[in-house]
Amino acid sequence: MHRCQRWLSAGLVVCVAGVAFGQDAVTAGETGLANVTDRFVVDNLWLLISTALVFIMHLGFASLESGLTQAKNTVNILFKNTAIVAIGLITYLIIGFNLMYPGEAWTVSNWLGAFSFGASPAHDGSGMTPDYAGYTYWSDFIFQAMFAATAATIVSGAVAERIKLGPFLVFSTLYVAIVYPIIGSWKWGGGWLADRGFYDFAGSTLVHSVGGWGALAGVIVLGPRIGKYLVNEEGKCQIRPLLGHSMPLAAIGVFLLWFGWFGFNGGSVLSADPGDPSDGNWYGFGGVSLVFVTTSIAAAAGIIGAMFTSWIVQAKPDLSMALNGALAGLVGITAGADVIRVEWAVVIGLIAGVVVVLSVIGLDRLRLDDPVGAISVHLVCGIWGTLAVGLFADDARMTQLDTEGVGVGTFGDQLIGVLATGAVAFPAALIFFLILRFTVGLRVSRDEELGGLDFGEHAMEAYGGFQVFPDH
Amino acid sequence: MHRCQRWLSAGLVVCVAGVAFGQDAVTAGETGLANVTDRFVVDNLWLLISTALVFIMHLGFASLESGLTQAKNTVNILFKNTAIVAIGLITYLIIGFNLMYPGEAWTVSNWLGAFSFGASPAHDGSGMTPDYAGYTYWSDFIFQAMFAATAATIVSGAVAERIKLGPFLVFSTLYVAIVYPIIGSWKWGGGWLADRGFYDFAGSTLVHSVGGWGALAGVIVLGPRIGKYLVNEEGKCQIRPLLGHSMPLAAIGVFLLWFGWFGFNGGSVLSADPGDPSDGNWYGFGGVSLVFVTTSIAAAAGIIGAMFTSWIVQAKPDLSMALNGALAGLVGITAGADVIRVEWAVVIGLIAGVVVVLSVIGLDRLRLDDPVGAISVHLVCGIWGTLAVGLFADDARMTQLDTEGVGVGTFGDQLIGVLATGAVAFPAALIFFLILRFTVGLRVSRDEELGGLDFGEHAMEAYGGFQVFPDH
Amino acid sequence: MHRCQRWLSAGLVVCVAGVAFGQDAVTAGETGLANVTDRFVVDNLWLLISTALVFIMHLGFASLESGLTQAKNTVNILFKNTAIVAIGLITYLIIGFNLMYPGEAWTVSNWLGAFSFGASPAHDGSGMTPDYAGYTYWSDFIFQAMFAATAATIVSGAVAERIKLGPFLVFSTLYVAIVYPIIGSWKWGGGWLADRGFYDFAGSTLVHSVGGWGALAGVIVLGPRIGKYLVNEEGKCQIRPLLGHSMPLAAIGVFLLWFGWFGFNGGSVLSADPGDPSDGNWYGFGGVSLVFVTTSIAAAAGIIGAMFTSWIVQAKPDLSMALNGALAGLVGITAGADVIRVEWAVVIGLIAGVVVVLSVIGLDRLRLDDPVGAISVHLVCGIWGTLAVGLFADDARMTQLDTEGVGVGTFGDQLIGVLATGAVAFPAALIFFLILRFTVGLRVSRDEELGGLDFGEHAMEAYGGFQVFPDH
Repeated sequence: MHRCQRWLSAGLVVCVAGVAFGQDAVTAGETGLANVTDRFVVDNLWLLISTALVFIMHLGFASLESGLTQAKNTVNILFKNTAIVAIGLITYLIIGFNLMYPGEAWTVSNWLGAFSFGASPAHDGSGMTPDYAGYTYWSDFIFQAMFAATAATIVSGAVAERIKLGPFLVFSTLYVAIVYPIIGSWKWGGGWLADRGFYDFAGSTLVHSVGGWGALAGVIVLGPRIGKYLVNEEGKCQIRPLLGHSMPLAAIGVFLLWFGWFGFNGGSVLSADPGDPSDGNWYGFGGVSLVFVTTSIAAAAGIIGAMFTSWIVQAKPDLSMALNGALAGLVGITAGADVIRVEWAVVIGLIAGVVVVLSVIGLDRLRLDDPVGAISVHLVCGIWGTLAVGLFADDARMTQLDTEGVGVGTFGDQLIGVLATGAVAFPAALIFFLILRFTVGLRVSRDEELGGLDFGEHAMEAYGGFQVFPDH
Repeated sequence: MHRCQRWLSAGLVVCVAGVAFGQDAVTAGETGLANVTDRFVVDNLWLLISTALVFIMHLGFASLESGLTQAKNTVNILFKNTAIVAIGLITYLIIGFNLMYPGEAWTVSNWLGAFSFGASPAHDGSGMTPDYAGYTYWSDFIFQAMFAATAATIVSGAVAERIKLGPFLVFSTLYVAIVYPIIGSWKWGGGWLADRGFYDFAGSTLVHSVGGWGALAGVIVLGPRIGKYLVNEEGKCQIRPLLGHSMPLAAIGVFLLWFGWFGFNGGSVLSADPGDPSDGNWYGFGGVSLVFVTTSIAAAAGIIGAMFTSWIVQAKPDLSMALNGALAGLVGITAGADVIRVEWAVVIGLIAGVVVVLSVIGLDRLRLDDPVGAISVHLVCGIWGTLAVGLFADDARMTQLDTEGVGVGTFGDQLIGVLATGAVAFPAALIFFLILRFTVGLRVSRDEELGGLDFGEHAMEAYGGFQVFPDH
Repeated sequence: MHRCQRWLSAGLVVCVAGVAFGQDAVTAGETGLANVTDRFVVDNLWLLISTALVFIMHLGFASLESGLTQAKNTVNILFKNTAIVAIGLITYLIIGFNLMYPGEAWTVSNWLGAFSFGASPAHDGSGMTPDYAGYTYWSDFIFQAMFAATAATIVSGAVAERIKLGPFLVFSTLYVAIVYPIIGSWKWGGGWLADRGFYDFAGSTLVHSVGGWGALAGVIVLGPRIGKYLVNEEGKCQIRPLLGHSMPLAAIGVFLLWFGWFGFNGGSVLSADPGDPSDGNWYGFGGVSLVFVTTSIAAAAGIIGAMFTSWIVQAKPDLSMALNGALAGLVGITAGADVIRVEWAVVIGLIAGVVVVLSVIGLDRLRLDDPVGAISVHLVCGIWGTLAVGLFADDARMTQLDTEGVGVGTFGDQLIGVLATGAVAFPAALIFFLILRFTVGLRVSRDEELGGLDFGEHAMEAYGGFQVFPDH
């Protein structure tokens, strides 16, 4: 019985809400996890701390995206990123969690998870620990919920400066509530990609490329920002940079993303396992310690790769390229951070850093206008990182994981995972965007775009008291 | 014997300081905690990590408050927030800790704590662990000290853009050194509110409403900023927005506050207890895992509530409202984060998000000028969250806590806690502010207010090289 | 055998890289850490979390340094700080780690470490735990690698606004790859300063003063910024403030540095030891709990000290001085955070706060132009903190540590450590800078300095769309 029943004056509405969520009576003593071990406490704590770290990545995205775009659209970008966190958490509570981790309750076996309210630990206590070796039901839920929102956030930057607020929020809700968890269930929920041997440690494909495919679809449907690609008298296309308005914001964003990545990758160990060197695993594969090293080293190498590539290609070393290089390295290492030796992490990061610069330049030539480079960072490097597992993962370790049924990640397995994800995520996003475009409309008016979405969508300005030139 | 005695050249002053603090001789071997268990190490570590997270909330407050106010007052706001952290920690060391946690040494039993230097663990080692089940004396001290400073910081935003620096620092010192610990001792120190059954898990009342009452008193004594409320020719009052100067700063502030709240609420478990599902507690009440979920979900729901309320009431979705919605949800869940089911956390957060928008608008109609919405967020939602425990807390869990003497938190108990806190905090703040007003003066001159406190109080500007319009 | 060998299409280059790094065959079962204890898991986890906290200090430095300098040089400063993290991590992997922690493999016994690739745990598993009581090889590596980069970052602020990018990166690479690890090996690697009794808990000397000496050398070789020191008609020198362009950025920087310092000092315990009160250590020396308290209290006292000193000396309370006061307190406590009683932490922090203000003013009189006060904070307060161990460390504790061979830290020992460090770090930095100056050139042209390094070195601007006056 709940207190609200004794306090009807608090309003029927909230009681109805309670009923709708399927309240159950608490019966004392009906369960019993006999023994919360110390190791369980530590493992669970690390998953929670990782949750907090993944959370701060949302501030990272908000800062990076607003820093790399124009001042007149800053309120709009911050608003989207704030709303997405909320939408991501709430939809994951309502539908996403069970859709992604159906246990035995698949709707279509190994392909489509369960449609049910996602936050009710099993009454018999089994949901609390025995099934979740190193964490409680709630820790599992909140860690995964924080992940979910990141996929939608990735889209936000690519479609910035021209998308209507309402339709974007509708898209995000659908994408994070349905597309992300279904694709995720194929591997992390124990579905068909898991059976197939696909390996994706922390989500180069399942998180980053899913977000990246959404970004690509959005950019295609929306078209470029006004003034980005100009055709001159000779009929040749000129690419005009639409400068970001605050490089410190962009830098804050990238450093916070890296900081959060310690939880994103480190927490994906799903325990505080330091990497037990026994059983032949003297290198520490699968442990949080090695994951911290490969993650950091790949990010560092990504910076080096992007820095020199931009120095050579663009004549001057470009800060936004160096920053995107760090992210490229991070995305690139994410699929295999626990199975790759440190020297190969350097190689993966370096290549990611080179690739991201070339991709940013290449997409511009294709007139795909991605203001923050989200497609290059998350889709292109997400694919690279996933395939890199097939190239560079430690053989002995993968054989061991194969024995344990975790996945072996050959190049072929990885390619299938990449293609299967794209084959669902991209068309789904495309359909959502097209439906929105031809019903409520997806793009703001020309006047609003030129004047800025801050005024048009929010009747606010981001920098009161400063003179900002909207048409710089 | 201390080294300074051997190095008199270092100055008598510091030696005197040592004596003043009551140095004692260290006698080896006089004590003994026989056994520091692994679980103790984890629990203690989590309290320390939480301390770091609560610390970063001060940067959150500094960013939020400066972002939502005018550029000409930025240095002043940052200075206040920097000084308050220092004042909070030092005064808590000198007087606050023992005043708040007197143990058996009350000055007036259950009403007024002990006046003594607050940082000396008991020589017999008992102060290190047996009395503090999951943490050392020092961890307890620094976690609570970080909390203390937040109460004063809350006031800072409400009185911004017009209060003199010196008097504000004097007020803060008095409020954080005396008022906050005394009220806190009533519940967390084991005083009369604890006996009365009042429940306040992490401080909706004891921290946030205490800060909010101080903010309300300050706003009343100071009056509104020049130009905020204009009377037009027909004698009607017009409310003029005095725009904040940096929405990215405001967003950084709110995200950092949320990030820190994982420590604020999560650390208030006072251990790394994952939520043992045995003993009938299959839902995980009282554990850090559930606290992370309710905290995050309430914040998310607060954003949704505030977003839609502002979209409806103000025609356009307002970013500062969405941001304050997150804080509203966080403040609202703080009193009961460990005893409330997740679906009720949604409800509490949603309502907090609606309430904060209506409160901000309502206070403006009352001509109570609170530049950052601190009263609405911390006082109004602090009260809401405290009362919500009486409405929504899980009955079985509260009965269990009642048995353990922790508090039962009926609606009546909660109301008493709310009223008792207001009955002391508000008059105390009012008296402090009035005394300062009629002695040294509380408000800067009209010229200084118009020209900005950065120049008037600090002879500095926050944005050298940028053109900022002080009278936008 | 590695996968790349099966995927030659991935390019010969990466395979060569693998060979160059000395790949070894993984032989299953050849090792065995029989027992990863729970305590080991916690200790190791804390070192990793500390690594993440030390990482975020790099964002702190980037924010602080760009905030305190002019808008026209912001991209350049952010670029340097991004590149340094990458350079620091990669060089520490290639050479730094083994140079600093040679174990038994000194090149010159106790003076010069081992030149070998720094990231290969021993095959027999001994490198994973028995030799590293509370952490794995990888945790040790990444924690120390994060430290390494901070030393170079300190230099960055002092030489800002006039140094060429390329030469600065070359200097940083040499300094962080060679000078920092060699000096560090003398104490932390078990070299001659360790034998001598020198005590430096977390690096007031080994990190901060090493960075500070580099900063001093750079400032001397470069000379002041154009327009900083003007000689008037009467031949007297006038000091012109070249205002920082964003005090919020500076404040964000300092708060993040403090936040990171919980890992910098707290992690230097090298375990999650809460401070076992048994064995006569009732005060909790050497534990993370006390380290959190002394660190926070010294920072708070540093703010108080700097605030009042600047209020008295400069008539108005200066925000940048208060912020530097926090850093001064933090640097000051770093050498002895685990062996000093809390009341002495207040004294050390207060004095550091006073000293940093006087030092900033004094260096300006000497025409040593340090735009961010790095020399005052890191060198002067680093020396102060190191010597303070000799004055204020707890005698009983130091006697205990002396018995354990950890160091006794008398004033004489400390002075030797300070002088020995300066005697190598300063000339080394001076030689590097002079060689660069007389070969490739160290300083940008007059035109580039006046127009800003953002345009000159990067062909970018930090604040697109804002009107910024380069010559304010």
